[in-house]
Amino acid sequence: MKATCFDGKNMRYEENYPEPNTGEVIVRVNLAGICGTDLEILDGYMTYDGILGHEFVGTVEKADNFDLIGKRVVGEINAGCGACESCQKGMDRHCPNRTVLGILKRDGAFAEFLSLPEKNLHVIPDNITDEQAVFVEPLAAAFEIKEQVSLQPQWRVAVVGDGRLAQLIIRVLKLTCPNITCFGKHKNKLESLINIGVKIKIGIEKSDEQSFDLVVEATGSNSGFADTMKLIKPRGTVILKSTIASRENLDLTPTIINEITLIGSRCGLFKPAIDALATGVVSVDSMIDSTYPLEKFSEAIEHAKKPDTLKVFLKP
Amino acid sequence: MKATCFDGKNMRYEENYPEPNTGEVIVRVNLAGICGTDLEILDGYMTYDGILGHEFVGTVEKADNFDLIGKRVVGEINAGCGACESCQKGMDRHCPNRTVLGILKRDGAFAEFLSLPEKNLHVIPDNITDEQAVFVEPLAAAFEIKEQVSLQPQWRVAVVGDGRLAQLIIRVLKLTCPNITCFGKHKNKLESLINIGVKIKIGIEKSDEQSFDLVVEATGSNSGFADTMKLIKPRGTVILKSTIASRENLDLTPTIINEITLIGSRCGLFKPAIDALATGVVSVDSMIDSTYPLEKFSEAIEHAKKPDTLKVFLKP
Repeated sequence: MKATCFDGKNMRYEENYPEPNTGEVIVRVNLAGICGTDLEILDGYMTYDGILGHEFVGTVEKADNFDLIGKRVVGEINAGCGACESCQKGMDRHCPNRTVLGILKRDGAFAEFLSLPEKNLHVIPDNITDEQAVFVEPLAAAFEIKEQVSLQPQWRVAVVGDGRLAQLIIRVLKLTCPNITCFGKHKNKLESLINIGVKIKIGIEKSDEQSFDLVVEATGSNSGFADTMKLIKPRGTVILKSTIASRENLDLTPTIINEITLIGSRCGLFKPAIDALATGVVSVDSMIDSTYPLEKFSEAIEHAKKPDTLKVFLKP
Repeated sequence: MKATCFDGKNMRYEENYPEPNTGEVIVRVNLAGICGTDLEILDGYMTYDGILGHEFVGTVEKADNFDLIGKRVVGEINAGCGACESCQKGMDRHCPNRTVLGILKRDGAFAEFLSLPEKNLHVIPDNITDEQAVFVEPLAAAFEIKEQVSLQPQWRVAVVGDGRLAQLIIRVLKLTCPNITCFGKHKNKLESLINIGVKIKIGIEKSDEQSFDLVVEATGSNSGFADTMKLIKPRGTVILKSTIASRENLDLTPTIINEITLIGSRCGLFKPAIDALATGVVSVDSMIDSTYPLEKFSEAIEHAKKPDTLKVFLKP
């Protein structure tokens, strides 16, 4: 099959990569999305080699369950061992022996085919386009916040970052909290938020400090973390939505002095994200950027890296 | 009055320091305790100059409310402005313009007299000794955890650190959670915990990793934070009870990947602490070390700094 393969340093295109042969469901990838995590892996943030990509929509090619064959699906990316305490509690996402599609010990979606356990797959309603369906995985990560925090409509909410994940988070939070300010760096990304009723700011003013009940950190940078800690009220809640890879210059002092709650937040359940796209309560159409054929992965990645880019797709 | 005064670099004893003249209640200090925060201030951790000391028991000398005069009292250490949003919500402890006894813009307890607003004072029942009463302030800080987290009796709980604050935290958590392990470094401090039914460990074994539902960080060190992140289960709760002054080598990655909740925790309400001492459900007697006259503050501080020391008192 056609696939792009990352050897831990470089990514290359292969015309005749072996097809998955795992006893799991085999999915033909219709469309895959490039995510910030993919770019971080390419930059050496995690030790991974294999096929990258974890945002996809595809068509079931082979499955023990005949009803699934031919269905259009998206897939939860964590596959647990099924035996440990986490898996027994239904928290496959936290199984210490898990594999993660395109991230950890499991080939991903930048290929013609991928495989996943049947229980990871969700059939996508016909009124969701392929481009929209690719957003289910990151949108589920945004919906995870609602599972973790009891959002209050009267809260003043800040989102630090204006990238792809931040854009999705804002759309999800907006369902409950009307008063949202996005602190970003990129004028065009920020301006796209004005249409959905979000206040936008480049830089923190004195009057913003310690004035938000909830702050979501969606940059993964030290400076984003520092800004977050400036914005949050005493006794407020911070969601850490993006992995902060650097270990240096992180000041936890305000967390203790101001009794802040920091909640780490990663993947989420797919159902609320699929429902939100199917009913149209969340729209991702303005976030669609461009689609490249799989062979042109290198151009696609360079495009995705540019600060003003929204979602870039690969089509095998 | 007799007082010890810290000029930001050195501490000195003064026989004729001016008595407080603030319009607040004037308290004659019976006994004061030396706390880790005092030692950190002396080490330059915070910019403070004035009289140190925030753990005390005293006798009311002057007050507008005549009923208070002659009463034995302890005092909440934060004094808010009374006007801001935090103060209006009863969160004086988080008032941005607050003063803090012996810590921030307010002379403390290592002196013959101190002053505090009347509402900060709590009369101490006769069956609590002066030595026990000095523990009310740090014990309230330990009780704060119960205000912030709904403790579950079946939880496996770890406390990282075996110092004075850790010892109090363990006593408070033990009221709800029988299964507590203390990870410490000092054999004599750890051994004192065996009597109250706590498991003790020096160093983390493989089987301890990711196996605790709640971990309390009570060392304020980077290595304590790293140990905490090793011990906590995915989706578990971490209480940060001690200010982590260093900004370097702090790895927040597991917080996000394992969806940990980190809760900063500082001062607490005095009432539950006073009740616990009065009824005897918490005993602090084994934590009493030695008492020095105020003039010998220098010896007292050197003693308090030694790793095996429990609570050291100053008597004006």
